[in-house]
Amino acid sequence: MTYRAPVADYEFMLRYVVGYESVAATERFADASAETISAILSEAGKLCEEVLAPLNRVGDLNPARLENGVVRTPPGFAEGFKAIAEGGWVGMSGDPDYGGMGLPMTLTTAVNEMMSAACLSLQLAPLLTQGQIEALEHHASAALKQQYLPKLMSGEWTGTMNLTEPQAGSDVGALTTKAEPNGDGSYAISGQKIFITWGDNDFTENVIHLVLARLPGAVAGAKGISLFLVPKYLPEADGRPGRANALKVVSLEHKMGIHGSPTCVMHYDGATGWLVGAEHGGMAAMFTMMNNARLGVGGEGVGIAEAAFQQALDYAQERKQGKTPSGTIIDHADVRRMLTGMRADVFAARAVMLACALAIDMQKATGKADWAARAALLTPIAKAFGTEIGNEVAYAGVQVHGGMGFIEETGAAQFSRDARVLPIYEGTNGIQAMDLVGRKMADGGAAAFRLLDEIERHAESARARLSDLAEPVLQAGEALRGATEWLVAQNNMNDRFAGAVPYLRAFSRVLGAHYHLAAALADPGGPREKLARYYITALLPEHAGLLAQVQSGAEALFALGTDELAV
Amino acid sequence: MTYRAPVADYEFMLRYVVGYESVAATERFADASAETISAILSEAGKLCEEVLAPLNRVGDLNPARLENGVVRTPPGFAEGFKAIAEGGWVGMSGDPDYGGMGLPMTLTTAVNEMMSAACLSLQLAPLLTQGQIEALEHHASAALKQQYLPKLMSGEWTGTMNLTEPQAGSDVGALTTKAEPNGDGSYAISGQKIFITWGDNDFTENVIHLVLARLPGAVAGAKGISLFLVPKYLPEADGRPGRANALKVVSLEHKMGIHGSPTCVMHYDGATGWLVGAEHGGMAAMFTMMNNARLGVGGEGVGIAEAAFQQALDYAQERKQGKTPSGTIIDHADVRRMLTGMRADVFAARAVMLACALAIDMQKATGKADWAARAALLTPIAKAFGTEIGNEVAYAGVQVHGGMGFIEETGAAQFSRDARVLPIYEGTNGIQAMDLVGRKMADGGAAAFRLLDEIERHAESARARLSDLAEPVLQAGEALRGATEWLVAQNNMNDRFAGAVPYLRAFSRVLGAHYHLAAALADPGGPREKLARYYITALLPEHAGLLAQVQSGAEALFALGTDELAV
Repeated sequence: MTYRAPVADYEFMLRYVVGYESVAATERFADASAETISAILSEAGKLCEEVLAPLNRVGDLNPARLENGVVRTPPGFAEGFKAIAEGGWVGMSGDPDYGGMGLPMTLTTAVNEMMSAACLSLQLAPLLTQGQIEALEHHASAALKQQYLPKLMSGEWTGTMNLTEPQAGSDVGALTTKAEPNGDGSYAISGQKIFITWGDNDFTENVIHLVLARLPGAVAGAKGISLFLVPKYLPEADGRPGRANALKVVSLEHKMGIHGSPTCVMHYDGATGWLVGAEHGGMAAMFTMMNNARLGVGGEGVGIAEAAFQQALDYAQERKQGKTPSGTIIDHADVRRMLTGMRADVFAARAVMLACALAIDMQKATGKADWAARAALLTPIAKAFGTEIGNEVAYAGVQVHGGMGFIEETGAAQFSRDARVLPIYEGTNGIQAMDLVGRKMADGGAAAFRLLDEIERHAESARARLSDLAEPVLQAGEALRGATEWLVAQNNMNDRFAGAVPYLRAFSRVLGAHYHLAAALADPGGPREKLARYYITALLPEHAGLLAQVQSGAEALFALGTDELAV
Repeated sequence: MTYRAPVADYEFMLRYVVGYESVAATERFADASAETISAILSEAGKLCEEVLAPLNRVGDLNPARLENGVVRTPPGFAEGFKAIAEGGWVGMSGDPDYGGMGLPMTLTTAVNEMMSAACLSLQLAPLLTQGQIEALEHHASAALKQQYLPKLMSGEWTGTMNLTEPQAGSDVGALTTKAEPNGDGSYAISGQKIFITWGDNDFTENVIHLVLARLPGAVAGAKGISLFLVPKYLPEADGRPGRANALKVVSLEHKMGIHGSPTCVMHYDGATGWLVGAEHGGMAAMFTMMNNARLGVGGEGVGIAEAAFQQALDYAQERKQGKTPSGTIIDHADVRRMLTGMRADVFAARAVMLACALAIDMQKATGKADWAARAALLTPIAKAFGTEIGNEVAYAGVQVHGGMGFIEETGAAQFSRDARVLPIYEGTNGIQAMDLVGRKMADGGAAAFRLLDEIERHAESARARLSDLAEPVLQAGEALRGATEWLVAQNNMNDRFAGAVPYLRAFSRVLGAHYHLAAALADPGGPREKLARYYITALLPEHAGLLAQVQSGAEALFALGTDELAV
């Protein structure tokens, strides 16, 4: 497998599809001109192609393991991480006051996508560190920032997020880890956390944990949770790691995929930590980190999809079979159907991801509430759609390989196994969909309707030039508007939730068509127009069946008793 | 994981959904009354629950391996196979003249489904043996039948099918294995075969290979292929295995799943074999075996889906999380949506499978061409739909488990990994779909239209009682009819092939609705009606988007050049 960084695709999409020029036009991101970011993307692409991609299968074959309480990472991962750190890729969107590059998230998101395509297991380490950086930037005290941010941004240290406990998964509010004040401004953290990605490693001199815990007397549920920074080694006065904190990795999980990434059970036994943000304000601080990570995980899905697509495309062009013009399987209509669908979906999911990142940048740069609402609306969509497409394209990639796809040596199967975690972690896709139809539509759907207005205006303006593409987008937009109106009119939240996942998917399909249409307009008669035509003709129609499901409500679902399901 | 054999579901479906009474009414299957088959299903179910299901994870953790040229199977597999053999389950549909039980395929198909649900890796051994039995019954000489069939039906020996070569996968006609006459009626077989499931084992005294090869002077392509029976050990005059034949297992594949099943690279070095069927008539003989195996593989998909559904249902009823009436996740609307969809799809895929098996039985019992055409039409649908549902339900099963689904210990991930081979082997699902829109519609769609007539007549007759369910089925049937008319009118086969996979899926969706409607009619106000309502409301609408894709043709697909895909 040779990974080719899709730099030209980012350049095209930033310019013609998501409107990056509005970011570069802001004062905050004035330095990040189109030329600058092209250079940065090329540099990151080189790292991914040359250094990271060769590690992907190594990590699968040599899982991270626990030896006498110490995590041992796969061969080459230490060097790979060092290359990421030294390239400045961890802190690229970080605050320059603490050593970051202050670059737009739009760019960071593209770089993260490439790194995940090249080696998902390793890329999780910088991704989670970036999430921690953002949480600390927003919520930590000046002292903590000064002490930790430079080390995190430089990649000397890595960061983790510790939410889940055995009895508290999607329901974070059920967690029981305790934080007792030590009297000196620090706290003693005690409890067990599970599913801690990169909970430890053997290549950075420290690992910093952000841990959700309860202060004494905290109320039950999510409102009684606070966030703490808990380092593996307690920094000395000179900032260097000193004595070991009272925490340890108890065990690693045996997972279906991402074998190179250690997924840890962590035990905190009165470990010293410091409050981040307000007392009982942990959820707000954690959401800063999670929203960042959710977009990042969506990008991981896009990355896996891109890598799986490339490998399948290569295989289809090499594999001789049957009587076709080229002699290879790529000329079989069904193989072509799979590959074209994969490519069209990678584009759609990437566009949603970049549009979400762009909204975050515009929010940061302008402070406008509309951009904040746009980013909030697109985050669950980018996460769920990106990760679904990651799985679907990886699945199709195996299928294109035929029997060889099921054989581990090709790597096609690994993409499928690795991708399977993406719709689960950082909030399952069900949680994302409930977030979309619940919290993100607590505004009565205002942010959704604004986006639909844009989609419809854009399609209307395209009517004259590309009516065969613009009309179906307009109709799909109207259908989605109708379903959105239906959803926000439901007072029984179960009626919203019952259709949440198909609604999110239908929304994604329509968004994908919107961005494909923009690409078609920018490339008349060219490959972008042809790809858009395929997407709009063959893939967009999926939305109709999904929206029918959305509006069927919860009644038919709950009519069937639990015991009746087992019949 | 505790597997519960769904005997009650088979009983209901045989009686009310697929009309088993017509099989029992034939002279040939007069002994297989509803009472008899209930007893047999219960007996098979017990074997699956008690003996086979405990082996499933053992096989995953202890893959079959090759030691000094000998295949070593996972612990317990030998005893498991022996129990299958001693129960008579290998030869249950075999000719009683050779030791079979002569039972209907409808019944065998249900039993095979249960065995695959319990332990897919092991079930492949009897499944392939059954396919070989059927091929020999139809095509072998009386002497070969006498010599081999009793041993195969009793499970003393197992059978394999050897089609694929490195350069000849979906294009079987490209194979190069040679067969030279030895002058004594036997042939010397030389060549390499890959992906040979259960190519060897350490628990039967012989393994019989059916091998596709070319006779000297055979024409190129599929028309120059003949079929040979090649035993691992050459039988002595008394029928017992004698000296070793000139064949060996070269290596085993490292696969994504079905670790317990040895997937062999076989080398034949002048091995002694005997012709089965006519010279150059190998493809016809092989198709007998393959059609049997295709339905069987579809049933494997249903089996995995059932097992994954049961496990997810159990987990959802045990896992406490969030504030719901039961305190468990099953009352979350999105979890309920997943489980209800899984159950509804298991039903639909099982109904298609049983309907296909029933058509085979009716063909055998009546010799009528209409039944043969029905069986031929339904075989690719049963294979592709069953295996897709197997993957989709296993995927959803992982999702219901949340983070635990990605951890191997739960077994949810294993279902997904095991199921992934099903849409690939015995002809990829793309091949099935091309078979459906090509060969199976070479009659101008007559068999398809006859089935659509039945679906529409049935829905019309249901209008009075269940109009809210009958109407959507009628409309979907009409839409499918329109797409079928469009398909058979295409002279350019690529226009058919470009839409073949979505067409097959849409056909499956409509068939599923037809059978759900039948179930609803038989259970007014009961769980079957409620499940049917969910399927028809929420899942059937998928067909519309698929049929739009079907009728988009090959042009949009091939408009995009191979090089343009890589942009």
